[in-house]
Amino acid sequence: MQPTVIAPSILSADFARLGEEVDNVLKAGADWVHFDVMDNHYVPNLTIGPMVCQALRKHGVTAPIDVHLMVEPVDRLVPDFAEAGASLISFHPEASRHVHRTIQIIKSHGCQAGVVLNPATPLDVLDWVLEDLDMVLLMSVNPGFGGQSFIPATLEKLREARQRIDAIGKPIRLEIDGGVKPDNIAEIAKAGADTFVAGSAIFNAPDYAEVIGRMKAAVEGIRG
Amino acid sequence: MQPTVIAPSILSADFARLGEEVDNVLKAGADWVHFDVMDNHYVPNLTIGPMVCQALRKHGVTAPIDVHLMVEPVDRLVPDFAEAGASLISFHPEASRHVHRTIQIIKSHGCQAGVVLNPATPLDVLDWVLEDLDMVLLMSVNPGFGGQSFIPATLEKLREARQRIDAIGKPIRLEIDGGVKPDNIAEIAKAGADTFVAGSAIFNAPDYAEVIGRMKAAVEGIRG
Amino acid sequence: MQPTVIAPSILSADFARLGEEVDNVLKAGADWVHFDVMDNHYVPNLTIGPMVCQALRKHGVTAPIDVHLMVEPVDRLVPDFAEAGASLISFHPEASRHVHRTIQIIKSHGCQAGVVLNPATPLDVLDWVLEDLDMVLLMSVNPGFGGQSFIPATLEKLREARQRIDAIGKPIRLEIDGGVKPDNIAEIAKAGADTFVAGSAIFNAPDYAEVIGRMKAAVEGIRG
Amino acid sequence: MQPTVIAPSILSADFARLGEEVDNVLKAGADWVHFDVMDNHYVPNLTIGPMVCQALRKHGVTAPIDVHLMVEPVDRLVPDFAEAGASLISFHPEASRHVHRTIQIIKSHGCQAGVVLNPATPLDVLDWVLEDLDMVLLMSVNPGFGGQSFIPATLEKLREARQRIDAIGKPIRLEIDGGVKPDNIAEIAKAGADTFVAGSAIFNAPDYAEVIGRMKAAVEGIRG
Amino acid sequence: MQPTVIAPSILSADFARLGEEVDNVLKAGADWVHFDVMDNHYVPNLTIGPMVCQALRKHGVTAPIDVHLMVEPVDRLVPDFAEAGASLISFHPEASRHVHRTIQIIKSHGCQAGVVLNPATPLDVLDWVLEDLDMVLLMSVNPGFGGQSFIPATLEKLREARQRIDAIGKPIRLEIDGGVKPDNIAEIAKAGADTFVAGSAIFNAPDYAEVIGRMKAAVEGIRG
Amino acid sequence: MQPTVIAPSILSADFARLGEEVDNVLKAGADWVHFDVMDNHYVPNLTIGPMVCQALRKHGVTAPIDVHLMVEPVDRLVPDFAEAGASLISFHPEASRHVHRTIQIIKSHGCQAGVVLNPATPLDVLDWVLEDLDMVLLMSVNPGFGGQSFIPATLEKLREARQRIDAIGKPIRLEIDGGVKPDNIAEIAKAGADTFVAGSAIFNAPDYAEVIGRMKAAVEGIRG
Repeated sequence: MQPTVIAPSILSADFARLGEEVDNVLKAGADWVHFDVMDNHYVPNLTIGPMVCQALRKHGVTAPIDVHLMVEPVDRLVPDFAEAGASLISFHPEASRHVHRTIQIIKSHGCQAGVVLNPATPLDVLDWVLEDLDMVLLMSVNPGFGGQSFIPATLEKLREARQRIDAIGKPIRLEIDGGVKPDNIAEIAKAGADTFVAGSAIFNAPDYAEVIGRMKAAVEGIRG
Repeated sequence: MQPTVIAPSILSADFARLGEEVDNVLKAGADWVHFDVMDNHYVPNLTIGPMVCQALRKHGVTAPIDVHLMVEPVDRLVPDFAEAGASLISFHPEASRHVHRTIQIIKSHGCQAGVVLNPATPLDVLDWVLEDLDMVLLMSVNPGFGGQSFIPATLEKLREARQRIDAIGKPIRLEIDGGVKPDNIAEIAKAGADTFVAGSAIFNAPDYAEVIGRMKAAVEGIRG
Repeated sequence: MQPTVIAPSILSADFARLGEEVDNVLKAGADWVHFDVMDNHYVPNLTIGPMVCQALRKHGVTAPIDVHLMVEPVDRLVPDFAEAGASLISFHPEASRHVHRTIQIIKSHGCQAGVVLNPATPLDVLDWVLEDLDMVLLMSVNPGFGGQSFIPATLEKLREARQRIDAIGKPIRLEIDGGVKPDNIAEIAKAGADTFVAGSAIFNAPDYAEVIGRMKAAVEGIRG
Repeated sequence: MQPTVIAPSILSADFARLGEEVDNVLKAGADWVHFDVMDNHYVPNLTIGPMVCQALRKHGVTAPIDVHLMVEPVDRLVPDFAEAGASLISFHPEASRHVHRTIQIIKSHGCQAGVVLNPATPLDVLDWVLEDLDMVLLMSVNPGFGGQSFIPATLEKLREARQRIDAIGKPIRLEIDGGVKPDNIAEIAKAGADTFVAGSAIFNAPDYAEVIGRMKAAVEGIRG
Repeated sequence: MQPTVIAPSILSADFARLGEEVDNVLKAGADWVHFDVMDNHYVPNLTIGPMVCQALRKHGVTAPIDVHLMVEPVDRLVPDFAEAGASLISFHPEASRHVHRTIQIIKSHGCQAGVVLNPATPLDVLDWVLEDLDMVLLMSVNPGFGGQSFIPATLEKLREARQRIDAIGKPIRLEIDGGVKPDNIAEIAKAGADTFVAGSAIFNAPDYAEVIGRMKAAVEGIRG
Repeated sequence: MQPTVIAPSILSADFARLGEEVDNVLKAGADWVHFDVMDNHYVPNLTIGPMVCQALRKHGVTAPIDVHLMVEPVDRLVPDFAEAGASLISFHPEASRHVHRTIQIIKSHGCQAGVVLNPATPLDVLDWVLEDLDMVLLMSVNPGFGGQSFIPATLEKLREARQRIDAIGKPIRLEIDGGVKPDNIAEIAKAGADTFVAGSAIFNAPDYAEVIGRMKAAVEGIRG
């Protein structure tokens, strides 16, 4: 079983002092940094690119940086993020004409590779690439839009994704992103997730360590 | 005559401590913050979006923020940047099907409006909109690509742009962006620029105040 | 079981006196108005937009208007059609990057939501959104091209779609569009459709009431 | 000198009884029917396509139909509109990669050809095609957006366009579209326009003949 | 059972003397000519178009020409290739909004029709069109990129595709393209392929007849 | 004055024996090989790409290869053609967002750079890049469409382009492409062209040397 990972999304951090924010959240027990890249084409918003990722590495961040590309097309940005210090790069298969190839490009640049499924995307996009992946990320909200809560159907989708992963017996992470909070994380973990993105639930809390601790405890209660 | 403005491009700042960097450069005599937005479509790079702009305002930055949109299409991002605290928004006319309309949208959101001309873009894109503008920005390098130096033909282009602006007698700024340094800024000012973007020339210098001071002095020697 | 609905497509009506045509077809027993929107991008034709829908409402049409968007992208037109009086808005999932989100947008504007499957589109596009839908529309011809007859494989596709709908026990309509005529409508109803679009079969008939009556009778013979 | 033409835009007519509306406005003295085609890509709106044009011809309209394509790309729709009865087809040069070719396509289908200039579009798009045109249309508002008034700079642009047309001595019409009303039409005619689109000014008036009469009288006072 | 077909890809031939190359490979026992069309949009490369196909026909080639369209969109090129002498045209379903329609267009121009599945494309794209097809082509490398070897997961994919084809009992070919060589062709044939594209394996060999003979013998050993 | 160049377009050659065709035309007195690249996006046709260019070099062609890119976007294909042996690469400025940059990319790969003007393209696209160019190519037909004859307005356009080139005193070639034949080449040369593309006029002639000789003689009679 993969160790539990809490990956705070820096979209909810203070961009005026991002290095410090990331330092604090990692000291508070976070495992990864979740880095949300939006290009105003795949999603109707534009956020941050490779230079910001690189600044975190130069600042001294050594934790895994989990880059979620909400961009279209995908391939051109992969080398830039690899060079900027990304550990894992995940992308939406609808945004790449050559999904298998994009996975190979990510790996050939020394990063782990993930694919991301939107709430409506069928699981069969995994049919012929699951074995090549290091992570599957299920969106439990629609990426790029604000003010949404966890879509309940994602629990069943997590269970089916978990079955697919277990069936091939490889250490592929199952990540969940959208509306994850201390009070629903146990249920989400029970459905099969092992990697948890949380933004406002962490960065809007007065005490990062307390909330991350509470999330981890809730997950451990399930995953053992 | 418009007062001289030095506008450091934050693309050369340290994104891990952006608030502090901007504070320092403003304390060192910079007048504006130049904010370069790239979407990986209009230019082959992706940088920073409205949330980073907003973070600077929340951090306490009160100086004008001069947002340069290297994005396509333009209109959808304008309200986001206006709400995020942009003071002036400039865009590339090739990236908008309705240039006059985009200018009106920027103004209707309470911002000043500028258009940006790539090195090869003819000046006649200004023919029917110059009177509506607050700024004309001439690129003296190709936007979105690194490692370029000031394109000499821009000096003549500045002179022609200056004539057009002077001919209508309105306080329209003439900004220059790309390869501006202490040792060529006088010549650039002489050609007609009054607003100067500089990135690495400032942020890579050991003493921001010293280099900004030197740039201003060089310009004042020309503009009087 | 959903009541049977006959929805004449106004593409076959006389656009020079559209209000009268719609009045007549509704008086003749039609239940809904089927409104075909094409943008010359998703399909190679351009038809009618929100202003024509609004004109029907102003004219006094109170029957449900069933808007079928053959456009790409989808989201921008949704509020316009909602405001213009659409009752139900359906779209093609290939034309939206964020299918779940588009459904929410339609609903948040007070309309019912449907998705449309082209003849070659697999049913698994419904996997994670069927519960959120008010209608599934199966195309039995290729949208946007003229002169086609009912594609026989659609009967099996209707049966599978019907099973999916029945399995979740929600009142989701199953609509069919393309080549529906009095002489094949019984077979189509038997395969599971409850909502029937017909264009030329109705508007080219000398007596709208007679043909609609014949279609309804044929369906009732099957559906009881 | 070209005879004065008043071309009511049917976008302001009642689409529920379009044939009758067009009959009425023609009886009231209008010369042409102005037909605004928007595809939700070149402009953010979708209006009416070839089938509506064809319905007007079948209804018995014999006046010239002046089709203004606010679409992108252009060429594919040209044969459809020609077949549907268009008399003149005008398009935006930014929307066609091969402007000279598009003009030839329009002519080869038996229609007259026009190009349309947005408020910000420089006149030099006419440099090498003016001789091939039957009409130049200057937009005095931004196409596809509502609630705008006549942009004053268009008067000077009309004067320059008029000079270009007069210089080559061919019977090329100079049309104006946007914010034209009885109280500014004289000034517009004086600047050089001979063909006047008006939408709400005519269709929102209680008496079409009265307002068209007033517009014609104002123009004749100038053009003699 | 379909007869075995070896289809050399002319991308590996000498384009300076293409007629002669094709003559030689056909004399050496090749059955079809595989013609790879890339447009620098669906794949990042541009190769050859209809004029080259037509030149082969004019040169006297009478063998089937198997055109593989790696282009987007698809429909516009179909008539050109049909007229240029294509025997079979296959395309990628992701590259056509109307897959069923594209198949009909190919057939209506007198060609056989195939669909091509990229390595990551799920087999359910065949769900509602398999009966209409003359061929299914599975890519065992990513199209448009060089230097790749046969992706092992394709063997299982071939087996599943073979089952689908056998289940409907129609003479639909199952073609494989990418990394096919004398030493793996038996295994590929065993998994269900009956039509084999090979490029460098044939054209880089000193003796075309010898290698084609060896490939056929290996296949016959399996298929009987 | 630049020496006269005759550049046969290989689009009119026999693609089944292209090496031989090019050898013959060069032996017959042609100076350059004109290589027309179409991608079915910038123009509605797809022709030949880098591999065909490379095959000519491997075949032994040492004459300059003059690559005319009718593609969009441009930059990605430049390195491929440079590596394939292109001598000069020209492109359409409408097809590149960063015209000045594209010119630099071409040069940095060791090729000469040209820009191509469509029949309707104003000359002011040259305003800020003419000094950086090795060639200006004026299209005297619309690229990508067949069966057109020389557009007469191109003569005046040649004269204006010639004046611009002479004014800066650099050895920039002025090439003409479209409908050039022995009986109009003198007039075209008189208007200022020094480099002449001809396709069918040469390759459809029974004796290449005779027609090339006649074209050169006609030009020399003018250019001296």
